[in-house]
Amino acid sequence: MSIENLSCNKSFGGWHKQYSHNSNTLNCTMRFAIYLPPQVSKGDKVPALYWLSGLTCTDENFMQKAGAQRMAAELGMAIIAPDTSPRGDEVADDDGYDLGLGAGFYVNATQPPWNRHYQMYDYVLNELPALVESMFPVNDRRAIAGHSMGGHGALVLALRNPERYRSVSAFSPIGNPVNCPWGRKAFTAYLGKDTTVWADYDASLLMRQASRFVPALVDQGEADAFLTEQLKPETLEDAASHSGYPLELNRREGFDHGYYFIASFIEQHLRFHAGHLAC
Amino acid sequence: MSIENLSCNKSFGGWHKQYSHNSNTLNCTMRFAIYLPPQVSKGDKVPALYWLSGLTCTDENFMQKAGAQRMAAELGMAIIAPDTSPRGDEVADDDGYDLGLGAGFYVNATQPPWNRHYQMYDYVLNELPALVESMFPVNDRRAIAGHSMGGHGALVLALRNPERYRSVSAFSPIGNPVNCPWGRKAFTAYLGKDTTVWADYDASLLMRQASRFVPALVDQGEADAFLTEQLKPETLEDAASHSGYPLELNRREGFDHGYYFIASFIEQHLRFHAGHLAC
Repeated sequence: MSIENLSCNKSFGGWHKQYSHNSNTLNCTMRFAIYLPPQVSKGDKVPALYWLSGLTCTDENFMQKAGAQRMAAELGMAIIAPDTSPRGDEVADDDGYDLGLGAGFYVNATQPPWNRHYQMYDYVLNELPALVESMFPVNDRRAIAGHSMGGHGALVLALRNPERYRSVSAFSPIGNPVNCPWGRKAFTAYLGKDTTVWADYDASLLMRQASRFVPALVDQGEADAFLTEQLKPETLEDAASHSGYPLELNRREGFDHGYYFIASFIEQHLRFHAGHLAC
Repeated sequence: MSIENLSCNKSFGGWHKQYSHNSNTLNCTMRFAIYLPPQVSKGDKVPALYWLSGLTCTDENFMQKAGAQRMAAELGMAIIAPDTSPRGDEVADDDGYDLGLGAGFYVNATQPPWNRHYQMYDYVLNELPALVESMFPVNDRRAIAGHSMGGHGALVLALRNPERYRSVSAFSPIGNPVNCPWGRKAFTAYLGKDTTVWADYDASLLMRQASRFVPALVDQGEADAFLTEQLKPETLEDAASHSGYPLELNRREGFDHGYYFIASFIEQHLRFHAGHLAC
């Protein structure tokens, strides 16, 4: 397995690094970023938060804009940020910002031409943590979080794999993708027209029938322009009520969909995860 | 005076806003950003930190990447981030990233074609604070700070106008521009070949002869690729020793020239300014 270091910046006493590697799962070269807190210099392995970004993002948006490294350094937590889709000239794309490159939706595509590379669900669930845990001083105590499309991804991965994650959180997640324009467009392309298979990637449908729980924290801005049509946090709340799911969902007055919102509450999310990761 | 609101994001209980306005000083339309902390909602006027960015930046880099708004909200401090040069199709430019657009160097240009628009010194010193203090709940207790080219600008503005600023700080400033490639290129273009007039824009030369003091804090990464050739913090230290200037200059092992370095120490800079602004 080849892996190449692309950048290295000291940050809050730890290190922010970018790497590229050949992904067998995605059948292309991928970039990811990792923040290693200062505690690793003592030789300790640290728990890890996997962060999934939203539409159009790369590994860089969260690392540069969320202000998360301050708390990760204090708590002794690594953060791993993958890209949001397979990449490369040979990877299928679409003219829309919400399908194709930058819009992998954290599913395993079954439909051509997407199925050749768009296997982000398996990549985030298996290949990336295996790589990280073999290459870095990071242990297998994992949390997962994300924003918007990445919030959807984080919730789905945790709901379907409760043995893999200690906690999950999301900002402004696409809570019920089978019933919103972003989700319907992406799922039709990646998964096909048979909507019964879409349910495996819908956080509200999964949460409604859940019997094994990963503690979940969601923050949603009330001034978010996508709130009503795309995000639908009320469907998550209904699902949690139905199954007794341990979901804390906070509505934040005046906050929008962007990174100033994430930065404002990232400390609370990292402290939530640290409690479950036993940092 | 026309001013237009371009964006508004709630952030840490306060508001990040971008505006455009017609600048009489720069003879063009300018954009700036302001962070208003939650304390203004009580009707209080708050002190202000003016932040000057480095080469190629706009008002956005610091606001998005420095993580400063958390502390500004806690301390009750506004932050104002101007652009780094005049802007517009009619504004003179150069092929280099270090001259022209994005590289105003916070001087008043005297040489054509630059002198028609490149008057960033006067803009930051007079026009922008007058606008801000007339339009927003911001008082005239001012601090100034910046990064790289902006660190040079902040130091020069404070050294030449001690009655205008309570404190000054800089990350990785160009400390002796008359003796480095960035400074010599810019000053030759904007100020002409007579190097005697350059001294008015050189922090080390100004600090060496200073008799009125603005408390100054500088942080410099020791892994900064520009340290030896462009930044020269040792000349600032020599100047401060000579005049007894109240300069605290910290060298930070392992940190480079980028925003992860700024984010790592911005809390200390804001606390330093808050002490002098009596936030």
